[in-house]
Order: sequence, then C-alpha cells, then structure tokens
Amino acid sequence: MRMVDLIQKKRDGNALSAEDIQFIVHNYTNGNIPDYQMSAFAMAVYFQGMEDDEIADLTLAMAGSGDSIDLTPIEGIKVDKHSTGGVGDKTSFIVTPLVAAAGVPVAKMSGRGLGHTGGTIDKLEAIEGFQTELTRDQFIDNVNKHKLSLVGQSGNLAPADKKLYALRDVTATVDSIPLIASSIMSKKIASGADAIVLDVKTGSGAFMKTLEASKALANEMVSIGNNVGRNTIAVVSDMNQPLGYEIGNANEIKEAVEVLNGRNIEDLRKLSLELAAHMTVLAEAYPDYKTAYQTLQKKLDNGEAYEAFKTFIASQGGDVASIDDLDQLPQTEYHVEVKAEQSGYVTGIDAESVGVAAMHLGAGRATKDDVIDHAVGITLKHKIGDYINNGDVIAVLHSNSNNPTSVIEQLKHAIAISKEEQQKPVLLYKVID
Amino acid sequence: MRMVDLIQKKRDGNALSAEDIQFIVHNYTNGNIPDYQMSAFAMAVYFQGMEDDEIADLTLAMAGSGDSIDLTPIEGIKVDKHSTGGVGDKTSFIVTPLVAAAGVPVAKMSGRGLGHTGGTIDKLEAIEGFQTELTRDQFIDNVNKHKLSLVGQSGNLAPADKKLYALRDVTATVDSIPLIASSIMSKKIASGADAIVLDVKTGSGAFMKTLEASKALANEMVSIGNNVGRNTIAVVSDMNQPLGYEIGNANEIKEAVEVLNGRNIEDLRKLSLELAAHMTVLAEAYPDYKTAYQTLQKKLDNGEAYEAFKTFIASQGGDVASIDDLDQLPQTEYHVEVKAEQSGYVTGIDAESVGVAAMHLGAGRATKDDVIDHAVGITLKHKIGDYINNGDVIAVLHSNSNNPTSVIEQLKHAIAISKEEQQKPVLLYKVID
Repeated sequence: MRMVDLIQKKRDGNALSAEDIQFIVHNYTNGNIPDYQMSAFAMAVYFQGMEDDEIADLTLAMAGSGDSIDLTPIEGIKVDKHSTGGVGDKTSFIVTPLVAAAGVPVAKMSGRGLGHTGGTIDKLEAIEGFQTELTRDQFIDNVNKHKLSLVGQSGNLAPADKKLYALRDVTATVDSIPLIASSIMSKKIASGADAIVLDVKTGSGAFMKTLEASKALANEMVSIGNNVGRNTIAVVSDMNQPLGYEIGNANEIKEAVEVLNGRNIEDLRKLSLELAAHMTVLAEAYPDYKTAYQTLQKKLDNGEAYEAFKTFIASQGGDVASIDDLDQLPQTEYHVEVKAEQSGYVTGIDAESVGVAAMHLGAGRATKDDVIDHAVGITLKHKIGDYINNGDVIAVLHSNSNNPTSVIEQLKHAIAISKEEQQKPVLLYKVID
Repeated sequence: MRMVDLIQKKRDGNALSAEDIQFIVHNYTNGNIPDYQMSAFAMAVYFQGMEDDEIADLTLAMAGSGDSIDLTPIEGIKVDKHSTGGVGDKTSFIVTPLVAAAGVPVAKMSGRGLGHTGGTIDKLEAIEGFQTELTRDQFIDNVNKHKLSLVGQSGNLAPADKKLYALRDVTATVDSIPLIASSIMSKKIASGADAIVLDVKTGSGAFMKTLEASKALANEMVSIGNNVGRNTIAVVSDMNQPLGYEIGNANEIKEAVEVLNGRNIEDLRKLSLELAAHMTVLAEAYPDYKTAYQTLQKKLDNGEAYEAFKTFIASQGGDVASIDDLDQLPQTEYHVEVKAEQSGYVTGIDAESVGVAAMHLGAGRATKDDVIDHAVGITLKHKIGDYINNGDVIAVLHSNSNNPTSVIEQLKHAIAISKEEQQKPVLLYKVID
C-alpha cells in the first residue's frame, strides 16, 4: 500500500477501506507518512468528504493511536460531555456535579485552553490548591467515591489527532466536518466514556458560524458515536453572544457556583440542565428526558449539586472556603466600568470579540507559553434583547492594569445597540440522537 | 502575508494575485514555506484550478526562481521545441537540423530521461564522443556558427518547478493542467527562447490519455506563452502507438538519420516537417506555414538537413563516421524476432508497454542511478492498420541477453491483432496558436 495511491483514491472521490485508513493513521503517527502527504490527503478530504463508515474508521484509528483510558474499574455507565467551545461557557462546573448528584459517575479529562479564555482546567485552577495531576488510581477512586473527578488530558491521548490537528491548522484544512468530527470523537473515545453528550455551539462566537454547519457537525458526531458503539446525543446551542454574564476564569467559577446555589442565570442554567438531563438518561439514571430534567432541577435547587461540587473540589485539594465565600476567589486591583454611549436595545454581543478582549486582559493564552491571570475577566451587565439607557454600565472589566484603554474600545465595538427592538436569541436549536 | 491564508484563498476558489504567487514561489524555493503547505496548496489547485493570469504568474515566478539563460548574444529569433513525451519520439533529431538548415538558430537545452527510454541527451550519447557539457560561450558560438547546439539543462533551471514537481509526484497532484502547463512553460521560458512550438502527445502512450485533456493542456500552454510574450504554437499529435518503428537510443538515432536521408517513415517524417514548419514561421524565416512546409520538404530531400545534422554532431565532438555508416552505431549481441501468433490486422500497439519493454532491455532508467545501454532497443516491423500473417515477424528485440523471455511476452501482449480491418490512426489532431 502506498500513501500516494490512497491520496489519489480520496482525491478521485472513492471511499477508503478500514484497512486504508488504519494504514494512513498508523504510519502518519509513527512518522512513516510525511506531513506533506498528510496535508494533501486532508485537502482531498476537504473537497471530497468522507462516508460515515470512513469517518468512523478514521475516528477509531485515531482513538487507538495512543493511550486508551480504561474506565471499567468504575461502576456504572460513564457519560462524558464535550462542548465545541464558546465564550463564557462554564456549563461543565454545573453539569458534572449535577450528574454526580444523580449518582452517575463522571470521569472527565480536560485540557488547558489556547485562545480567548482558559480551558476547564485553567478555570478550576483559579481555586487555590486545586490539583488536576492525579494518579490513575486516585482518579478511579475519586470517581467511585464521589462520582466525579477531573484530570488533565494524558499527553499521549490520540496522538494521531494531535499531530493531524496541528497540521490542519497551518494548511487551511480545519473546516472539514469529517475531520472536525473525527478529531473530537477520537479523543472522547480514547478517554473511555460509554456514552457522550455533545454541546455543539452555533453562531458568531462559535467555531461553526451557521446553524446548518453546526447541525451537520452534530449529526456527523452522533453518527460516529452510534457507528462505534458509544451512545451519543448532540445539542445544538446558541453562541451568538457569550453564555451567562461572566467571561474569564475565577469569575466564571463564581457564576457557575451561583447557579449551583440556585441563581437563575437563564441561558446558563437552562443549557446546563439540558445537557445534564441527556447525560443522566444515557446513563440510565432516569427513564426519560422529562423525568431527568425535573429531578435535576430539584437537585440544583435543593443544594445537592452544590454539595457535590464542593466534595469534588475538596477531593482534589481545592480551597472549599473560596467556594462558600466567593469573594475569596482571586480578585483584580481594578474594576473598570464600560458605559453605553446611546440608548436602545442590545442587538448583538460579538462573543469572539469579547473573548479576545478577555484574553488581552490576561484571561487566556495567545501562545501556549503565556501565563493566565485567573483574576481578570469581563462581567457583562446586559445581554441581547435588553433595553439600556445612554450612560448605563454595559460591562465591567476586571483588570490588573488601571487603564485598559484598547480593551475598553474593543468591548464597545463588540456590543451593538440599536433603537429597534431585538428578541432574545433562541438558546437551544436542536437535539440530535 | 501567510501561506495558510493563501492556501485558503485558493481552496475557496478565489484567484491569487501576482504578488501572492510570487510570495509562494519565492518562499517555497528558499525553504520558508514547507512542503506540507505546498502540497495542500497543490491539492487546492487540483480542485479549484487557476485562471489564465494566475497560471502565467506562476509560470513566470517559477521561471525566475533560478538561472535564466540569456540568448541575446545569438542573432535572430530563437525558437524552442518541446514534446510532452512519448515512446519512439525522435523528432528532435530531424526537426532541429531542418530548422537550422533554414537559417533559424536553435539553442536547445535538454534533459536525461527517467522511465521508458532515454532522453534526448541519452540518445545523442549513443554517438561516440558526443559532448553535451559545453561552456556558455561554446554553446553561443556553436549556435551562431552552425545554427544548432544542444546542451544539458542547467542544474538551477527553474528550481521551484523542480522542487514542486517532485512533491506533486508523491502527493497525487500531478494531474492538474495549470500545474503541468506552468511546469513545462517555466523551463522553456527560463531557457531563453523567443518562441516555442509544443508537441502535445495524446493517446494511450501519452501522459494525457484523452484528446480533450491534451487539447486543454495545449490551449493552456499557448495561453501562457501569449500571456508572457513568447509566441507559442501547439500541435496535438497521436501517441496511441510509438512514433516510427524504432524504440531505444542508438536505433532511434539511426531511424532519424534515415529520415534525414530521405526515407519516408510516414508518421515520423510528417510530424517532424509539421513541427519544423511552425518553428520556422515563428522565427519569420518563411511568410507562412505552406511555404515553410514545402521549402523544408525540399531541404529534407536534398540533404541540407542531413548536412546540418552532421555539422552539429561534429561540432560537439561526435563521431560523424557512425552517422554516415549507421552500422557503426552501438550494436547488441542478439537480435530476437518476435512473431505473430495469428493472422489479422494490427489494431493496437500499446506505446507505454513497448516503452517499458525497451526499458527492461536496458534502454531506459527505472531509477536515476541506472546506466543506459545505448545499443539495446526494439524495432517494430508493423504499425496499426497493417495486415500480418501468422508467423510474420512483428518486432525485433535488440538485446544483450540471449533470451529476454519476459520482454518477449510483454511485447506480445502490447500488440493486438484482430480479424477486423483497422484504420491507421490520425497523426495530427489539432494546431493551436
């Protein structure tokens, strides 16, 4: 078998066999297939697509290219959750303790963030003492004891995907649904979950800007999951503005804890319940979505989810006092108010720009060696559809420099105000299972 | 400017500017753009094509990536000829002295061959003493004195094309008309000719198997020539069977010399006159094609072209005695007759298989380190359309091994015989100017 022939096969629109794909992934991972052949192949896939069988084969081959996490020592059906990424997305901190409170084991591996704001692990590290470097036994024990543990991703999880993703990034082959779908699913499958709930973001602040593309990606990932024997459900949710009001690290933890304490931050609470409901149904904790949703609402309102979160934080060395008293989380020196310069309805909050503004304050990484300032971030005071008066505070910047002029300007540009009344955006577009 | 953005631009079907293309070629040549980006780009070009302006810009950028041969010290309009490659194609040895005999300067750079049979230089080296390593001054002087000189290609001629071609070969991006056309034309332009006549082969033994693809390539190259100010004419000619009867090195020289001596090997003589006529018209030696063709016929029949060939061979140290007495050219020890096993019409002679058979005898190179045996080759005794009887000799193998069994079998398979009468193939399909 020669790679050049397989590139041509795909280039000419033919489907690759499982053997072909195994050959490609195996030899690309071990360096026998050079990057210049793989990038030509990725471009051929960009144009010719892949059939469901090919995508499933690619996913399995990439999942099998490195470590596979064995979660069988954990009792019960292990359900994982994945978001395609958005600004202000702190659902993990609400969803995972909520699901744990329902008795469903959550053994989660997460990464650090590159870009706008930190990743799940960066955000948790805003809590003093919190450790994500557990041994395999500690991890398994924690899940068995507390139903929830979260660790950093193994360096050797789906290395084929890691290598291919870095290559796609510099060869204009990122925007290919078969390649995106197999990339995400390969890591989830290598992470050992039995079932997967996907939160596919759509809109200006999402990787997928159009509803059509988001649905296509969601469909493809659900199809992969079903093809490889992992029950998978996808929710397509809005990312035309940040989720909730807080964007940063410590302040996102704060907002999540507030929701765990019963505060109704509408979009954040609703999406968290939605995702948790699907997870618990897949884990067979509840017979159906409606029962699950209603039961989980109670667990959120009666503090069970909050208790599960605190147990989880404590079990990994985190300072629980800073959860009980959120003022103990890292704070910035300055809080700069950004004011509206006209009256009207908020018609748009460009999530990507808000994310970049937060990154410029220090909340995210422009390059992988940047150090995150957990205290900085942005608090929105209004969301799309709100009416505001000229001079009203529309956002607060939590900053450690006293006059972040360019970030203020950036944020003003990100928030559109108009005289015309604007509806709140739809939060949940579609559930695919 | 970032290469990833230019890949995306082409991927999305947009035309690149001259500046974009200059950036790509310059930085690819000097190693700033890695192969993995260039191969993704080539695949994007494969799918999206290029506009005429882009192809002209690419050609000029590749032509300018290394040495440019300055032919201005040669008086008159310099016309070059290029064939896209076929089996038994020895037109250069007839066309160039014929054009020189018409007083038109021919300053030709040629390569060695990789594949079926040798390249122009390999074939000429069948003549004892013939030298192709001339200094620049010797080359120019020879052309000014004798109107014809032929040297090996400079190692640094269009290095961007050399590098890109090697990459395309292993990334399934060879079959792209913009890339093929710009590759050929970049070398011709860097070689310094004022005008170019292209012989685009079509058929089973050609790189372009279909007439449609051959015409498209011919059109594209003529368009490039006109776009960059080099008068260009393309002839689309048949390669559904080898040209002439001889395939090899010394025996191809022999056949060419026979045509120069007036022998009417129909396809070879006709195509040579056709190409030479276009060259002399482009060089303004004759007012029109018809006058050129008729005058050149005379120069072939009255021995002027033959004399020009001998002068050329002598001027580069070749043994003219072996031209006057062709038996002095390298000879093999064995001449193995291949006989027909049925009666009927020759309906097909697979040129590619005949070429590979000749290579197996030693006439060509499978890898670039192989040494060519100038004496070996194949003489066809019949061409498509001939009627033959069972037991007739259809070909003779000139071999230095006494029983080349597998080559005999290969050749038998390459020649199809059927009871149904078969027309001779059309030789000249189209002239594009």
